[in-house]
Amino acid sequence: MSGFGPELLPYGVFRSPGSEPRVGARLGDGVLDLAALAADGTLDEDPALFAQPSLNAFMAAGPATWSRVRAELTALTHGPDAEPATTPIGDAELLLPIAVADYVDFFSSEHHARNVGAILRPGAEPVLPNWRHLPVGYHGRAGTVVVSGTPVRRPRGQRPGPDGPTYGPSERLDAELELGYVVGVPSAHGEPVAVGAALDHVFGAVLVNDWSARDIQAWEAQPLGPFLAKSFATSTSAWVTPLEALAGQRVAAPVQEPAPQEYLREDPWAYDLGLELEIAGTVVARSNARHLYWSPAQQIAHLTVNGASLRTGDLVATGTASGPGPGERACLLELTRNGTEPVTLDDGTSRGYLADGDEVVLRGDLLAEVRGRIV
Amino acid sequence: MSGFGPELLPYGVFRSPGSEPRVGARLGDGVLDLAALAADGTLDEDPALFAQPSLNAFMAAGPATWSRVRAELTALTHGPDAEPATTPIGDAELLLPIAVADYVDFFSSEHHARNVGAILRPGAEPVLPNWRHLPVGYHGRAGTVVVSGTPVRRPRGQRPGPDGPTYGPSERLDAELELGYVVGVPSAHGEPVAVGAALDHVFGAVLVNDWSARDIQAWEAQPLGPFLAKSFATSTSAWVTPLEALAGQRVAAPVQEPAPQEYLREDPWAYDLGLELEIAGTVVARSNARHLYWSPAQQIAHLTVNGASLRTGDLVATGTASGPGPGERACLLELTRNGTEPVTLDDGTSRGYLADGDEVVLRGDLLAEVRGRIV
Repeated sequence: MSGFGPELLPYGVFRSPGSEPRVGARLGDGVLDLAALAADGTLDEDPALFAQPSLNAFMAAGPATWSRVRAELTALTHGPDAEPATTPIGDAELLLPIAVADYVDFFSSEHHARNVGAILRPGAEPVLPNWRHLPVGYHGRAGTVVVSGTPVRRPRGQRPGPDGPTYGPSERLDAELELGYVVGVPSAHGEPVAVGAALDHVFGAVLVNDWSARDIQAWEAQPLGPFLAKSFATSTSAWVTPLEALAGQRVAAPVQEPAPQEYLREDPWAYDLGLELEIAGTVVARSNARHLYWSPAQQIAHLTVNGASLRTGDLVATGTASGPGPGERACLLELTRNGTEPVTLDDGTSRGYLADGDEVVLRGDLLAEVRGRIV
Repeated sequence: MSGFGPELLPYGVFRSPGSEPRVGARLGDGVLDLAALAADGTLDEDPALFAQPSLNAFMAAGPATWSRVRAELTALTHGPDAEPATTPIGDAELLLPIAVADYVDFFSSEHHARNVGAILRPGAEPVLPNWRHLPVGYHGRAGTVVVSGTPVRRPRGQRPGPDGPTYGPSERLDAELELGYVVGVPSAHGEPVAVGAALDHVFGAVLVNDWSARDIQAWEAQPLGPFLAKSFATSTSAWVTPLEALAGQRVAAPVQEPAPQEYLREDPWAYDLGLELEIAGTVVARSNARHLYWSPAQQIAHLTVNGASLRTGDLVATGTASGPGPGERACLLELTRNGTEPVTLDDGTSRGYLADGDEVVLRGDLLAEVRGRIV
């Protein structure tokens, strides 16, 4: 849902034929080569920030550098005569934009928590007692985060059965539509990041597809949580939207009840960003990031309250960003009630879970899409 | 429990005054400087393998290089006249030996699973139905793995209470005695590692203290597993014992019942390595790695069966290595029945959980100790 106009200018890493990977900024159908622009003096920055195989050096440079570079690029790309040279997007191989340090996935939509709880624990209170007191989360596998466009191999593993577990390909392969925040500025080990200072550490935002094998998850996840059900792949946008570009989307959110502990307390807010989940050519869910209960600042304050440090390249995802309505359920587990009520696609076929060959596309306002095909 | 004799030769990373970090091998009270030995031709290796701030370049070089270097060092350090120059250990600052990629913690001792299940879910079957079918595990935080000797700050967070959660320092801070395996050779994304080939990827072994805040864990861990209860710190040995040095400790283990799925099947085995857990000067538990149910090869085969890749620097821990006897319970949760039956130390004081100032020391045969003091 982004035309990559000059108001956006997200950052990524690309390689053109015969060249080394370097940092670029997306503009329309082209890529501004920031390493080249810094080398020839068009950008008044150290070229070493951008002649890199990831955004990490630039991300580590901090908010003053981020703002200055964005202002320079804005000057370069605005105005009636602005026609900076770009590499055509068709000539650019897009790489994973960040070297992922740790990957944490939260569970920040109450609608998702409620829908999943009702499906998996029928008859019980769907939202667990801790949910409104803290952003529930867990660590995922950083080494299998892949860039948009990377095919996703259907995972094999142990699935529950009436006569004990069987081994084979997952039969309940799902996608989850999430936002992710990328940490630029690290924090010191042992020192919590205050909720009011949390966004100073965040470089930008992406979409995240937290692929999930529900059958593997159902069998393995007690008592230590999801593991192989998630670790086979996590897809993320090729372009990281700078947080500054999202500032205008910040909206007030409903009061949090009960009031969270002091270290999580702030004026409730969220980003107003439309989101959609497309499967095999059909948009099956439309949601909005404003439905998330916990803000990115609260997620980061919680993540560090025990003294855990942030590192440049940490990826912090929101969990499935479902909204309140039936068309806003942002994964198949919710949409199909664990496969029992398949969704019908525009071509007349239906899906309980993903079929081989399905391409899943996540889109979001001001965020770069995430594509992945099941192979 | 190691004098670092010439049969061991574990690897680490050290810095002496005024020098850059480099790879060393421990020998008695000294450190062999492998970067210097390669630079002056004593070792017939590329100095760039060792002039590094972590073992990762050397670990990535693979088993043939590991064997050759070990053979060269063995030749250098054996024989009546062998007196290679070393840096005195007192002049060496020991650094975290590996750049940790992903950190996975398993739950591979059935005794630990049984003891913990009986304490936390009284009246229910203590070992969950999945436990004997697969090595249960989860991802921990790679960014807070610290080297032996690093002080550990008592974490703060939300703890359960009769009137809802309260915020403050953990009152149930625990240590867990574990082994860890360090991955050297990466594997391809999408391609499982066969159980019979798993050890070809493993560079060596360490001890791991998986510090755990039991009160934080009790409140946060449903439904997605432990998170802040573990992520504040994980301590590991400063010296990595090469797997070759453990070959003589390999012993047959009891048959696994039920037979695991084909991808996990191998002749059952374990390492015979005595282990001990010392708290504030008193050894409170003695166990042995031979009591672990799942082998390191099975852990790695499981970790990758869904197509997840291994990266150089992955740390794969066993979970608490408890044995069958009451003196073999390798964490305070088990030893004190969640604090209700405190252990008495040699100085007459007792502990339900760790007190501020306590130093915890893990020791193991052929493995380098892990120390950490609560501050």
